[in-house]
Amino acid sequence: MANSEWQLQAYLQERIQLAESALDRFLPAVDMLPASLHDAMRYSVFAGGKRIRPILMMAACEAVGGSPHQVLPAACAIEMIHSYSLIHDDLPAMDDDDFRRGKPTNHKVYGEAIAILAGDGLLTEAFLLLSNPDVFKDLSTEARREVIHLLARSSGSRGMVGGQVVDMESEGQPIDLPTLEYIHTHKTGALILAAIESGAIIGGADAQQRRALCRYGEAAGLAFQVADDILDIVADQQELGKDVGSDQQRGKATYPALLGLDGARERARELRDIAFSSLEIFDASARPLREIASYIVDRSF
Amino acid sequence: MANSEWQLQAYLQERIQLAESALDRFLPAVDMLPASLHDAMRYSVFAGGKRIRPILMMAACEAVGGSPHQVLPAACAIEMIHSYSLIHDDLPAMDDDDFRRGKPTNHKVYGEAIAILAGDGLLTEAFLLLSNPDVFKDLSTEARREVIHLLARSSGSRGMVGGQVVDMESEGQPIDLPTLEYIHTHKTGALILAAIESGAIIGGADAQQRRALCRYGEAAGLAFQVADDILDIVADQQELGKDVGSDQQRGKATYPALLGLDGARERARELRDIAFSSLEIFDASARPLREIASYIVDRSF
Repeated sequence: MANSEWQLQAYLQERIQLAESALDRFLPAVDMLPASLHDAMRYSVFAGGKRIRPILMMAACEAVGGSPHQVLPAACAIEMIHSYSLIHDDLPAMDDDDFRRGKPTNHKVYGEAIAILAGDGLLTEAFLLLSNPDVFKDLSTEARREVIHLLARSSGSRGMVGGQVVDMESEGQPIDLPTLEYIHTHKTGALILAAIESGAIIGGADAQQRRALCRYGEAAGLAFQVADDILDIVADQQELGKDVGSDQQRGKATYPALLGLDGARERARELRDIAFSSLEIFDASARPLREIASYIVDRSF
Repeated sequence: MANSEWQLQAYLQERIQLAESALDRFLPAVDMLPASLHDAMRYSVFAGGKRIRPILMMAACEAVGGSPHQVLPAACAIEMIHSYSLIHDDLPAMDDDDFRRGKPTNHKVYGEAIAILAGDGLLTEAFLLLSNPDVFKDLSTEARREVIHLLARSSGSRGMVGGQVVDMESEGQPIDLPTLEYIHTHKTGALILAAIESGAIIGGADAQQRRALCRYGEAAGLAFQVADDILDIVADQQELGKDVGSDQQRGKATYPALLGLDGARERARELRDIAFSSLEIFDASARPLREIASYIVDRSF
């Protein structure tokens, strides 16, 4: 168990490094004009983060026999999209957060105007990278189109941005479980699912493999959010680098608020089991995906 | 002359209608969840506007023998990008404008948070549409990739967003003509050029035609901005629907400020002539492009 845990950590560290060195390569150089904008874009991308979306994308690609290197442009694009969403979420008009992962948020360092534009820049840069003729040279143009379409659908008003709006509009109001699941399947789940489905496409998954990985992605994405909600309640400030219980203070609906802490943990376990069973058709190639599902859920216990 | 003017107006009206009915078709329905977000997205897209980018894209496609209908998805995508940029530009942290084209700006109607997200949603929707398998069915996937790449490059930190940052950072400071041209070739010129180059690609332009249309696009894009600067000084509030001379009040660099009103008009005329000469290889199919270049410049006299 300790051994297995150590191996997962080493795997995650290696993948984080792979993603971060690719991000450094693909992002506009800091001395490219306008320097302040590119500095702000890089600040948030490199302000820490678990790189869970790139890691899941690589792991899904590997599960169907691909190499993690194949997905790097898409893995970086999805991380740019994730970073942009955090910059905009933290703005005074939105969550008004001064710190994230223990560091000042983008607008606290660069001001609101640059923060808005750095987010816009990162979102656009993601699609610039996905459509760059110098990347994905071994991928069919149809598969590339599909990946672009997936990332756009999962991150826009029909996905992440839509989830953010319903989340905001639900603040301080009593909401039911279906609404909470709508929020999370859109706000965070959609992009996690897109990471996994993109990894499957780029790795050359057949239809059955792709369906299985999507089922895994839906369960893992929701499990990730349930676990985050639980952590928000129980973790101390040092560990998370943000205000403890800040979601609750803001009157945001969470799984523990709706199901109780035990009920939320039970839900996380159920989702982990769905994720596991979705991977039954895969052999050892899906070991990273299995361990990641465990890791996501277990950190909330 | 009066007859030619009337024809151009009829042409523009017809193209505006074509673009607007396609926008209505391609944008998420107003009753799609979250309704407030999709309502806000539609509000700004349909708050008027000259549709100059879609019109130029259609005209470039026609110049090389294509039909305006071929470009509609890309024309709508570029208009969504343009609309998103206006929403974010108007935010309190940016230009803090309460009115645009005589109507309350997005954040005045929907609040800042929704305005930020409506902008994000429109930008993402543009790439969703460009990668939609149900559009561009007669276009090669390589040409589609190129159009996506062009629109991303021209609108992101290497294009429009970058120009916006340099514009902001130059406020209240003495700047020279090269910096002013950097701002405009990036902030507005890049997207106008991308509209024309996309139209050329979708219409099946050969290399010579594409080069000629890009030269036209660079000149017309800059001419458009010079004319806008002139109009900002001379037009009355009713005509523009925004504060007269607001750029000047804000200490923004403009062509009239740098070159004088006569010098700016001379520059606009020069750019129009470059645009004209770029079109010499085309026959009557480029008539709309020629008339639009005249129209852009002449409205500032």
